[in-house]
Amino acid sequence: MKSYNIALIKGDGIGPEIIDEAVKVLDAVAACENIEFNYQEALMGGCAYDVTGDPLPQETIDISLSSNAVLFGAIGGQKWDTLPREKRPESGLLRFRKELGVFANLRPANVYDELVNASSLKPEIVKGVDLMVVRELIGGIYFGEPKGRDENKGWNTMVYTRPEIERIAHVAFKIAMERSKKVCSVDKANVLDVSQLWREVVEEVAKEYPEVELSHMYVDNAAMQLIRDPKQFDVILTGNIFGDILSDEASMLSGSIGLLPSASVGSSIGVYEPIHGSAPDIAGQGIANPIATIASASMMLRFALGENRAADRIDYGIKQALAEGYRTKDIAGFDAKEVCSTSEMGSIIANFA
Amino acid sequence: MKSYNIALIKGDGIGPEIIDEAVKVLDAVAACENIEFNYQEALMGGCAYDVTGDPLPQETIDISLSSNAVLFGAIGGQKWDTLPREKRPESGLLRFRKELGVFANLRPANVYDELVNASSLKPEIVKGVDLMVVRELIGGIYFGEPKGRDENKGWNTMVYTRPEIERIAHVAFKIAMERSKKVCSVDKANVLDVSQLWREVVEEVAKEYPEVELSHMYVDNAAMQLIRDPKQFDVILTGNIFGDILSDEASMLSGSIGLLPSASVGSSIGVYEPIHGSAPDIAGQGIANPIATIASASMMLRFALGENRAADRIDYGIKQALAEGYRTKDIAGFDAKEVCSTSEMGSIIANFA
Ligand SMILES: CC(C)[C@H](C(=O)O)[C@@H](O)C(=O)O
Ligand SMILES: CC(C)[C@H](C(=O)O)[C@@H](O)C(=O)O
Repeated sequence: MKSYNIALIKGDGIGPEIIDEAVKVLDAVAACENIEFNYQEALMGGCAYDVTGDPLPQETIDISLSSNAVLFGAIGGQKWDTLPREKRPESGLLRFRKELGVFANLRPANVYDELVNASSLKPEIVKGVDLMVVRELIGGIYFGEPKGRDENKGWNTMVYTRPEIERIAHVAFKIAMERSKKVCSVDKANVLDVSQLWREVVEEVAKEYPEVELSHMYVDNAAMQLIRDPKQFDVILTGNIFGDILSDEASMLSGSIGLLPSASVGSSIGVYEPIHGSAPDIAGQGIANPIATIASASMMLRFALGENRAADRIDYGIKQALAEGYRTKDIAGFDAKEVCSTSEMGSIIANFA
Repeated sequence: MKSYNIALIKGDGIGPEIIDEAVKVLDAVAACENIEFNYQEALMGGCAYDVTGDPLPQETIDISLSSNAVLFGAIGGQKWDTLPREKRPESGLLRFRKELGVFANLRPANVYDELVNASSLKPEIVKGVDLMVVRELIGGIYFGEPKGRDENKGWNTMVYTRPEIERIAHVAFKIAMERSKKVCSVDKANVLDVSQLWREVVEEVAKEYPEVELSHMYVDNAAMQLIRDPKQFDVILTGNIFGDILSDEASMLSGSIGLLPSASVGSSIGVYEPIHGSAPDIAGQGIANPIATIASASMMLRFALGENRAADRIDYGIKQALAEGYRTKDIAGFDAKEVCSTSEMGSIIANFA
């Protein structure tokens, strides 16, 4: 029996509720596939600050680094928004990404046929959308120096080096090879020097993938094209902040941000998490949609552990639950047969998986 | 008879065609309102480079500064994309904005009832949308120092000073006072130091406008909310690059980027231009939609010249042309009675105006 160590970082807000459902589903598929998960919980975000005074205790890094993969819920909440910058949950998250070296954030945006009416976009625009945003995650303006502020001025630096661009570009092209072999690199090369280098280096890396069709798009145009005709995209390759903006925008194609998973990879340990936040306003009510987190667990099985059959089971479980009309509150308006709670949805998917 | 000096910068691609239609409409309303326009043409962009070797000749700045307002088409095209950075059309445009001191870019996104089906978003989502993006235009990462690149590294600086933020915030609050009295300031204060200052200063300025309701939103969330529920917005206040991205995204609510005007103001001379680009692929075919440019001329009459009656005439002309089913090719799929060319559309609007 294969056995894996999974670090569980539940975090704040709805984090614990949704991670619990992902664990339920993981355990269900483990039983069928003769694998075993050993979970170790670790604190991050506001809850970590409350207990240890630090949003990212060293222990959390240690536990994560000694695991096979990290399954992550969500962090943050108004309660901690007035803390000094370095104590805030978000600072813990950014440091965590950096410590783990997860430079590639993979954010698929796909549309379940059953929910094709759930988007604010017309069904004919979103039906069949299946794209992947590959976002650089530990560079760019999020981390660039110099940065700082005083009473009269604030500044941050958007900086990329050639090796940083090369490694993220390779990730995008490799993913494209497994998909429809198209990469659209998004930048603002008509204005930014850093984008000019980005574009050049992406062109160079592209030469190693002659089968992949490369195009470039300015970020303002990309924000438009994503809603005008999202099906034109296969893999979108972009930097940290552009990827932050575009992937959130793309999530709207799917109908609910509660549906979409993500993977942050690059070093030996990957972090798998829903793209939504901690939603403190609905925490504890049992109405959060666990599908994004369950789908993240599936990505973990596939990308981190190579357990593709188990991952397929989860994906099938999600599709089946939706096909049979089970809906959490966020998607209750769309062909619901039964509106269910967070934990009911987890159990239903676990049963189908 | 009142007389105004208008600098006409037609630019590249479809620029000349659409400016010609705006002039046609301006002259039509001038005749009715007993005003007179003296146009002076000036070169900018690729055409200026071709003639003078400089995308922004000094003469163009001089003509603009001695005019009452600038009506601008669009610039750029692949032909000039390989020129050295400072010779490219975009560099001319950025320098032009800076030279004229137009720090506030106003980009309305509204939806004509007649075209409520033209958007890729559902009609019930876009019907009645009427928002204004107030984008800071001559600061932020577009101009921040240090910037540059070498073989291995590229860098730009996103920087804002207190006075820069104050003046753009005042513009947004003043505009909100004339509208629904809501300002949503968009930043990335959970990550960027510059955004923290931005947020603080906007809070301070807000105190002078107690009637206006101020909210803050992270840029990733704003990109999402703009498509999830655009009617929640009245005035969106944001920095240069976030405004570039969000206003292009917002333009998709209206159904065609060929519909939306913009004004860049701040100093004594304002620049009025469509938000779309020079579209070299359709230049010279007579199929470009002139409505965005004609609507920009209306904004010019209203904001620069105080000729509100003439502006109302133009707005009425546009609405009437749409109501009677006249459509250019980009919007031909939506309740067209007659598909018309660029210049036919200009004449029809001029007749109704
Ligand atoms: C919480 C925030 C720091 C984070 C980011 O901007 O990266 C989030 O928006 C995300 O996309 O994971
Ligand atoms: C052409 C380009 C430099 C410009 C900008 O980014 O400001 C354009 O996208 C705009 O929004 O007017």
